[in-house]
Order: sequence, then C-alpha cells, then structure tokens
Amino acid sequence: MSCTILGTASQPQPAASTGALSVAVVGASGFTGALVAELLLRHPGVELAQLASEQLAGAPVAAHLPRLRTDLSFCAPDEVGDVDVAVVCAPHGQAAPAVRRLLDGGARVVDLSADFRLDVETYAAWYGPHPHPELLPEAVYGLTELHRAEIADARLVANPGCYPTAALLALAPLASLGLVDVVIDAKSGVSGAGKAASVRTHFCSVDGDLIAYGIAGHRHYPEIVAGLGEGPTVTFVPHLMPVQRGIVETIYVRVAQVPSVNELEELYGGAYGAERFVDLCAAPPELKDVVGTNRCRLFATIDERAGRLLVVAAIDNLMKGAAGQAVQNLNVLAGFPEDWGLS
Amino acid sequence: MSCTILGTASQPQPAASTGALSVAVVGASGFTGALVAELLLRHPGVELAQLASEQLAGAPVAAHLPRLRTDLSFCAPDEVGDVDVAVVCAPHGQAAPAVRRLLDGGARVVDLSADFRLDVETYAAWYGPHPHPELLPEAVYGLTELHRAEIADARLVANPGCYPTAALLALAPLASLGLVDVVIDAKSGVSGAGKAASVRTHFCSVDGDLIAYGIAGHRHYPEIVAGLGEGPTVTFVPHLMPVQRGIVETIYVRVAQVPSVNELEELYGGAYGAERFVDLCAAPPELKDVVGTNRCRLFATIDERAGRLLVVAAIDNLMKGAAGQAVQNLNVLAGFPEDWGLS
Amino acid sequence: MSCTILGTASQPQPAASTGALSVAVVGASGFTGALVAELLLRHPGVELAQLASEQLAGAPVAAHLPRLRTDLSFCAPDEVGDVDVAVVCAPHGQAAPAVRRLLDGGARVVDLSADFRLDVETYAAWYGPHPHPELLPEAVYGLTELHRAEIADARLVANPGCYPTAALLALAPLASLGLVDVVIDAKSGVSGAGKAASVRTHFCSVDGDLIAYGIAGHRHYPEIVAGLGEGPTVTFVPHLMPVQRGIVETIYVRVAQVPSVNELEELYGGAYGAERFVDLCAAPPELKDVVGTNRCRLFATIDERAGRLLVVAAIDNLMKGAAGQAVQNLNVLAGFPEDWGLS
Amino acid sequence: MSCTILGTASQPQPAASTGALSVAVVGASGFTGALVAELLLRHPGVELAQLASEQLAGAPVAAHLPRLRTDLSFCAPDEVGDVDVAVVCAPHGQAAPAVRRLLDGGARVVDLSADFRLDVETYAAWYGPHPHPELLPEAVYGLTELHRAEIADARLVANPGCYPTAALLALAPLASLGLVDVVIDAKSGVSGAGKAASVRTHFCSVDGDLIAYGIAGHRHYPEIVAGLGEGPTVTFVPHLMPVQRGIVETIYVRVAQVPSVNELEELYGGAYGAERFVDLCAAPPELKDVVGTNRCRLFATIDERAGRLLVVAAIDNLMKGAAGQAVQNLNVLAGFPEDWGLS
Repeated sequence: MSCTILGTASQPQPAASTGALSVAVVGASGFTGALVAELLLRHPGVELAQLASEQLAGAPVAAHLPRLRTDLSFCAPDEVGDVDVAVVCAPHGQAAPAVRRLLDGGARVVDLSADFRLDVETYAAWYGPHPHPELLPEAVYGLTELHRAEIADARLVANPGCYPTAALLALAPLASLGLVDVVIDAKSGVSGAGKAASVRTHFCSVDGDLIAYGIAGHRHYPEIVAGLGEGPTVTFVPHLMPVQRGIVETIYVRVAQVPSVNELEELYGGAYGAERFVDLCAAPPELKDVVGTNRCRLFATIDERAGRLLVVAAIDNLMKGAAGQAVQNLNVLAGFPEDWGLS
Repeated sequence: MSCTILGTASQPQPAASTGALSVAVVGASGFTGALVAELLLRHPGVELAQLASEQLAGAPVAAHLPRLRTDLSFCAPDEVGDVDVAVVCAPHGQAAPAVRRLLDGGARVVDLSADFRLDVETYAAWYGPHPHPELLPEAVYGLTELHRAEIADARLVANPGCYPTAALLALAPLASLGLVDVVIDAKSGVSGAGKAASVRTHFCSVDGDLIAYGIAGHRHYPEIVAGLGEGPTVTFVPHLMPVQRGIVETIYVRVAQVPSVNELEELYGGAYGAERFVDLCAAPPELKDVVGTNRCRLFATIDERAGRLLVVAAIDNLMKGAAGQAVQNLNVLAGFPEDWGLS
Repeated sequence: MSCTILGTASQPQPAASTGALSVAVVGASGFTGALVAELLLRHPGVELAQLASEQLAGAPVAAHLPRLRTDLSFCAPDEVGDVDVAVVCAPHGQAAPAVRRLLDGGARVVDLSADFRLDVETYAAWYGPHPHPELLPEAVYGLTELHRAEIADARLVANPGCYPTAALLALAPLASLGLVDVVIDAKSGVSGAGKAASVRTHFCSVDGDLIAYGIAGHRHYPEIVAGLGEGPTVTFVPHLMPVQRGIVETIYVRVAQVPSVNELEELYGGAYGAERFVDLCAAPPELKDVVGTNRCRLFATIDERAGRLLVVAAIDNLMKGAAGQAVQNLNVLAGFPEDWGLS
Repeated sequence: MSCTILGTASQPQPAASTGALSVAVVGASGFTGALVAELLLRHPGVELAQLASEQLAGAPVAAHLPRLRTDLSFCAPDEVGDVDVAVVCAPHGQAAPAVRRLLDGGARVVDLSADFRLDVETYAAWYGPHPHPELLPEAVYGLTELHRAEIADARLVANPGCYPTAALLALAPLASLGLVDVVIDAKSGVSGAGKAASVRTHFCSVDGDLIAYGIAGHRHYPEIVAGLGEGPTVTFVPHLMPVQRGIVETIYVRVAQVPSVNELEELYGGAYGAERFVDLCAAPPELKDVVGTNRCRLFATIDERAGRLLVVAAIDNLMKGAAGQAVQNLNVLAGFPEDWGLS
C-alpha cells in the first residue's frame, strides 16, 4: 500500500557541515522513531547516520516512510555504532540492553522507553526486574524545562512519558504551595497506543467513541508520583479519544495554601516566562494549537467555589510527549540552540 | 441541500388506536425537538398531533427532516392546542411563556429548557429574573429514576440537563456515604452545543481537537449542586470533543465513609438493579454503547491509593440527556410502560 | 474491554409467538453477522434460535456484543441445525460447505458471501475453483427489488455485495436506453473492510485520509458486470473514506439514447415508485440519511454539457449492502411484510 | 475563545536580511490568507511587512491566529502599500479592485481569487460582469509547473483554484494523446468551503457524511475546461468529505490513442521527473501524504478492460491548491529557489 516514488529526486539534507553531530535512531519504524528521524533530517546540526529497525532491516526507508526524504536503508539494531548520540525508541525491557551496548560503544543515549525513568524498586513493581540496574544511578530524567542542567552533562537521558510530561510541567510551579491532593483527568489521541493494529485502534472502535482505561493502574502513574515527590494523594485516569495526536490533561489540585490570582500568575510566569516551548494561556488551550509542535500550553486558574486550583495542559504526545522532547534533549546534550529541528 | 423525496409513499404511523395520547412538540426543528418527534412517531401509544417551529411554520416536515416520515407540516408555536401533552423544546426564557399558555390550555407539559429546574433565586443568578415564578412550586424535576412517583402526578415536568442527568445518576447511590468533595470531568459531543453553526462547531474547529470550556461557571453547575443538596464541594469542568453525540463523565469523589467493594456494589445494585435504562458495568463504559439509546451506563470503583471513589457515567446527550428522557417522562405521566418508543 | 452487565435483566424477545420462523445466524461475531442478529432480535416474526461463531463458541453473546440483549451463548457452526432459515455470514470459500450442510439439513439459506453470486467460470477466475458448483444453478441473486419473485421461491439466496447493490439499483432503470459506458466511482466507510484490525483500518491511517484501492481489479467488478449483462464498458474504482458506515457511488453513464428529463424521471419512478426501500431524491443524497437504514437513495440527472447521465446512489453498506438486505430477503422467503425487522 | 499568550516572547523572524522582498497579505484572517502568512513568516527571503484584514484591522495578529508568531497587528486593506509583492486572498469580485490599486501602487500581485483566471466572456457567464477587464490580458495563470516562464515575468499572477490545480496537473501530460472524454470525480475536505460557519460545515453535518454537490455547475468547471483547451467533453463532480484538508481527484479519461504502459510512464516522467513538488507514484496516493505539503502526488494507469486511462491526483487544497502555490509563484516571480518557505 506504500507509495513508491518514481520520478522525484531525493532531497539532500541541509548542509550537514563538517563537525555535524552524527546520530542514529534505533526503532525507527514506529510512530515515535519515524518522527524523531523526520525531525533530525531537518536539523541543521545533525547528520542522521543510521536508522535501525528489527523488522525492516535492509529495506529502503523512503519506501516505508514516504515522509522521510532520505536515501538510507534501515539497518539492524545491532549494526548501530560509531555515532555521537543514539536515540532509542524500543519497548521497555528491550531498550535497556540496547542502551547498555550503545553506551559501551561510546555513544551518548536518549532513551524513550520507561527503562530509565524509575528507581529500581518501583520499576520492578510495575514492569518486572530491571535488566540493567547498574545504569540507573547515572540516568537523568529528561523533562527538559525541569532538569536542563543535569541533561547537559548526562551520558544517558531517560525521556519522559507523554502523560507525565504534561502533568509535571503543569504541577511543578505549584510545589511551593504544598501539594495536598491531585486528580489528573487525561485525554489522549490514538497514536499514544502505538502503530500496532488492534481492536482498540480500529477506526470503527475509536470514531465516535471515548473510553476511560487503565483504571486499575496505568504505568505512567508511578512516573508522575516520582516526579511530584512525597506528599500528595494522586489519582490519574487516562481516556482514549477519537483524535490522532495530542493529550489534554485537566488537573484538579488542592494545595496547602491557596494563592491569589496574582501569586498564581507569578508562579507560572517565574517558572516558564523564558521558556521557548511552554506557553502560558489566558484560557484553556485547544489541543490543535499544540499538535505538530513541541509546545506545552498551560492554563491555570482558581476554582473559588471549591477552594481548589485547576490546571489544563495540552501537548502533542508524539512531539513534546516523545520525539520532540527527545530532540530537545539532544540539543541540550550537544549544546545546540534548544529549538534546532523543532521550529 | 435537503433531499426531497419524490417517489416514496409516506409511512402510516403504527396503529394510533382510538384513545391514543395526543402530543405536540414545540420547537421541533432543533436537534432535540426533531428527535423527540422521531421517537414519538414510533411510539405505540401516542398520536403525534402537531409539530411547531417558529422559523419553519407552514413548511412540510419531511422536506426539512428527512428522517421523519410524516405528512405533517410545521405549525406556528401559538397554534398548538388541544393536546394531552406538549413537549417543549425552546430556549430558556422563551420556554416559560409557552409553558404557561399550554398549561392554561389544559395540556400537561414536559419542558426541556432550564426554566423550571432551579429555585427562583438560583435561576435569577444564572439566567436573570424568572418570567413565570408562579409555576416553579409545581414543577417536578424529571430525573426519572430518582423522582418517578412525583412525575406520575405532575402537570409540569422539568426535564433535566444532559450533564446533570449523568452526574446525578452517578452520584445518587453514594449519598448515604456522605459526599464530601466531588470533581466532575465531563466530555461532550458537539450536538450538545445545538444545531446553530458557529466557529465553535465548524468541522475544522472540532475535528482533531478537544477543549475545556465553561471554566468560569457552566449553567449546569447550579443544577448539579441543587441535585446533590447541601454538603459537598463541587467542581464541574465540561470539555468539547470531536464526536457528534454523547457524554462521558469521570467523577472523582471523596466520601465521609469509604465503602468496601461489596458495599459499593450493593449501593448501586440497590439503586438501579431493577432499572430498565441504567446499566451497571464491570469496566468503564464506552460512549458508543449508549449512543442512540436511552441508557445510562455506570461504572463505580474505589481508588485505594488515593482513598477516593471513581464513577464513570456515559449517556447519549440527545437521548437520556434530553429527548429520550422526555419520552420516558411522558410515559410515566401517561401510565405507559416506561420503554415505549425507546427500545 | 467488554462491558459485562451486572444489574440489568435481559429483555425478553417480543412475542415470538408459536409458529414464528426459527432462524440461525452463522458467523455471528463479525460486523455483518452481529447486525443480522440485532435485526432479528427485534423481528416480530422470527425466533432467533442459534448464533454460531467459530472463535467464540460457548461464550455468552451479550458479553461480546453488548448491543444484543439475549441470553443465548454462541454455538459452534456445525451445531447449527433444525431451523427454518439460516443466514450465513462466512468468508467466501468457507461459506459454500456450510451452505451445503445447512441445505442438506433442510434449512433455506441466505448466504452473504460471494460464493453463489457468480457463474462457475467467473468465480474461478476471481476466487479459485468453486467448492460446490452443483449448487450454483439454484442460487438466486438476492437484489430484492430486481429479483423478488425468484427469491420468494428460492432455497438458496445469494445476498449481493455492497458495491453491486448500489450500482445495480442505480443502473437498472437505464437498461432500456442501452448502456454504452459506465464509470462507477465508489466511496466506502471502513466497516466495509470488516472487523479485523490492520494497518489499513487503524484510526491513525483512516482519519483525515482517503485512498483509492482495488485499482487492478476489485472482486465486486465481475458481480457488477454480471448484473449489467453484456454490453457496456465498465470501470469501477472503490475508495476508502474516514467514516464508519456507508457507501456513496457516483456513476457516470453514456447511453445509446439520451432521455429527456421527463423520461428519466419516468424510468426511475416506474422502477421504484412503489418500493419501500428505495428513495428517489431531487438532489444528491447525503450518506448520513441512509446510515442505520435499509434504504437506497438515488439521484439521477442529465449532464447536458457532456451528453451523459449522472446517478448518485447511497446505501448503508452493513444494512442494504449486507445485513438489512439479508433480512429483507428472509422476509420475502418467508412471506412476511418486507419491512419487518427493518423499520 | 482565543488563547492569548502571556509568558512567551514572540520569535524574531529568521534573518530578514537587507534586501529581503517585502510582502503584504491582503485578507489574512481566512484559512488561506492565514496560511500564506504562516508560510511567509518562515520564508528566508521575505520580510512580511503587512497583514490586512477588513474585520480585524487594528487587532494584534497573534491574538486571533495563535500559530502566527508575530508582533504585527492587522491593518486595513487600503492601508497596504509600498511593498514589492502583495498576495491577495479576497473573494472574487472584491479582489479585482484591490489588485487594481496595488498594481497602481507599484506592487506585483499574486491573486488567489477567481478574478483573473478566465477570459472576460467566461467570467461574465459564471460570476457576472468583470470589474477590471483591462487587467485580464496581462494576467498569467499561475499553475507553476505549466507556466513557469510567464510567471517569472508577470506583474499579475492568477493563482489557480484548488480543483483545477489537481485536474490540470493530472491531465497535462496526456494532451499529446488527444483527450476525448474526461470525468473528474473530486473529493474535498471541509476547509475548501472556507472558514465561514454554516449548516454545511457544522461538525454534526460533516462527520460520518459524504455528499456530492455543485452538480448543476461548479465554478471550477470553466477553469478546468479553459485549462484543457478545446476538445474533450468534461464532467466534473465535487464531493464534500469528512476531513479538514485535502483533495483527491479520480479522473477517468478516454484518449484518441491509448498508450502502452511504457509510453504512459514516459509522458509523466518527461513532464514531472524534475519537478520538486510533483511526485509520481506507483500506487494511488494517500491523501494524508500530501496534507501539510505543497506536493501533488499523481498515479496514472491503464484500465485495459474499458480501454481508458485512470489518473489519481492528491493535493492539500490549502497548500498546492492555494497558499502553497501562491508562495511557489512568489518564489518564481522573485527569482528565489522554488521551495523557499515550502519545505
């Protein structure tokens, strides 16, 4: 069903000048990996050296991913080597061994799986025994706006999950008020479920439908709790909605000290006023204003009647929630301007 | 753009036997009114006598609403008279005078506006001065499952709003536990915004989008608060999602006494085990399983980590949230089986 | 993910009086079979005796198909027997042996596969050798409006494909003008591709997309050609569009004798003026006016500039294009009013 | 409902170096004008000097179009002046006087209306008397790939309509075969109908629907006929489908001399092999592979059974069908690389 291009010359990558950062993407045929590759092809400081895919090794990339204008063919994951940075888009459990090998080969790694986001006990409780616990101490949690300095020096960056990215960006400015109770009602597009076909992702299941899922415990819950630190009770309920991309989280928060409107504005302005990829909005953000961008749009207000704060966060799950933030972290690692490849 | 039928004979209504209840629909050209009419055309105990529309008076109904197989033409609202029951689908403020006139003419009324759902002070605070406060004492709030006995004897039934229908059905069984704090995160399809074209309802605005609205105060908030009675703090945030029909509400509840799983099941089973139009589900309901039906599907569970209850409710906003419940109430009024015209 | 109903009593089927026609559905878990079952549960003259499914044999029907209010469990296909009529919803090739067995057991059969729609040579060219060619002579092509009399007496009805149903209803009235050249541009919803999950039916593939397919030859092409008979050149191009249900075919026709507007109206009026399930429209039909119904809506006009006729046909692929027409044929077989279970 | 940005600094435009082309967009608040502006903000050779809007004159652009990162406010259309090039996105009839004024002021103009696409008689027949017929002789039809040389020298470029762009690109390579008969079945997303809210563009009208329109004669018909020149009979039927953006045209062609497969490939390869924005595909293109791009993807094949050619063309109606091609033409006018601002 793919559309082989007959008559168009492939486009040369813009000026991968001498000294460009050489980068490989491992797991490049999924939604996320393909998008990382697409972003890096347009990145002025990167030479996209290798695209690895278990299933498609040997096949020309452009035949399977017509949006990617490249002459590369997919290589096998274990052929990846001799690059400055590897971006790993593999399922949890499979990512850790690949990361181990890439680090040993001298690359720095941005890993998009859950393998390096949690401490060893929490990981074991939600995913099973960790394959490479020795790497956990050096892994830096890659929520760029909150951990920029550590990311710059890291050898291994654990790119955050999509839901935690939105939740933690939304809640971080409120920490000084004393978080007491947090309810995160999250709505996600279907691409969050990955590219695999299933009854759940069939057009006739999704179109016209909305459903809450992961009620008994979603794996992003412990990541959110870890990010918030000790203290608040947390409820997190994700929903699947009939859009391709994007997440909106409506977050209901009780804090120890309810701020004034001015104080609330100052907290958010202080945290994000200078941030390139966080917008502070005067009304609840629309999902579509973030889709296709690396932005997180935030709206915060006070529900006077209930004595509670309300924060709404919107991101593109594939961009700020995955591939975009991976490129942002790569830029921080490499000392590039943070928006290269992202604007 | 409407599709005039050239060659098909209109269908006779099934057996409007002598003694059928004669019914008029006022405001029959909107989403809700048209659906009430469609339901009543299939109702075995009703003769649909008049369909009134301000804008379309005089025009043949089938030309504008091709789903309605009828030879009727729209009449003007003030031509309605001499019917047993009138179903009024007019905007708030305009409904009350119409209801006054219909009651004076001897009809019983099911009113779908907000005009008779609130006490006079609350109404004034959210909508302005009430046009006919003298009617408020006799109006019965038409959430059928909760007020069936009063509805049976009423002259005037105030059909509930869509969001309150789902919220109050979801929360009623918990009253005995002592409601302390309630967060209602509601997601609605576009038909909830009515048939009027606007930037907000344009396909290119809605498709691929989700947005929270009514943050400063939605008019269904006081109706929910009135239904819950004194006590809990309540936050209600509606969202517009890209589906045509249906509402899902995810409700986060703190109660004075957290029940056991068994107690929770008994509360819901006791409340709704015998109800025709309430389903108790073992997993969060899918929106699409209620669209086109008069059902409310409920799922309740305990979030042990946060010491909170979680209830998910799904209804079709045009059916159980409007037209369907209106027919259900008409059935109660008339002494018909409650599912006539609805199954 | 299915929603087990805890607290609702299953609904008794309406009055399956003594003497009701006993019917089995084979292949009841797919889109089409489930819909046939849903229609038959509401059918006043039918007792739905058995629902067979290879994969789900033994499981309670309501657990998998929550729209079906029944206490039945799925049986295995070869447990079906002792019914008046069997409706077979199996893939081509698998249907013929099942039909053979059911006929031998004394049932009459409505078969929804392609197995009995073509002559033996054409079948072989498109599907391979026919498993039971001995049955072909007695099979009646079940396009109800065109073959009603033969269907009434048939033991085996070959229910037409969805695309041919719309195309042949659209073109039949033009036969007397001499068909010369026919282009059928068809747009179909995703349910036409069945319930199986695939890259092709993933929400993220379909949403926002449209694609032509089957260019090299779609299996409904020979069925259309067979229905039109010798004569015209025919091109048929189906497209997949982002809706769940429904087909619109825009058909461009050159005829030997271009009729006047009046003659064209008379041809269609004469053919379908008395038909319950064919609407003749004065403007191109909207897909949504047929979805959920057994109707075919037709619009025919003359393109004076090009000296050509234009016919637009809309049906619900699952109803008039499959399950609905199967019930219609069952009604003809059994001597019931043709709209029982369908209105 | 718009989302005012509180805390994010607006982004400086990339390096509008001395000598950048100064450009104004007239009618910048509609779908098309806003997109032209968005493209020009990223254009390395353009200084976006003015954005004009009748209704929004005086308002800050970013407040209404959050995707546009600019400090500009809208000006009134008649305040536009002193620019090198003006891109006019006004309705037909209103565009011509604006173009007259801009040309008199010394600007070169790319006009996106229909005002300069047709000869004076054809214009009169479809739109009424032409307001400025004196400008027609110098207007160049801006289908870039077919008229590049004339565009380079033009003072006034008539940017083509969306449907004609796809149709003429699809058919131009076949001219040498002798076009005899052409059927264009076009499917368009909703943005083709513009930003105005109407019953026709309401989400609940469009979602799940497809409808043929403009049967009696769409205004793009004479533009297609003019582009094809004397000879073939032409039928053009557009359809509205439930996607936001994009057009797919399936085109059925009879030619005087049916080519071989090789000849067909050579015709298309010869016409477009070197084109940056035309892809020749080996299978029917998917709409989504062109959405958001300025590309036209083409697939051509021979229907041996019917002795006819089949061409499928896909474009983004807002890009190659409007704003993108306008920027492409501006690049040709200015002597820039043709993909500046478009890749």
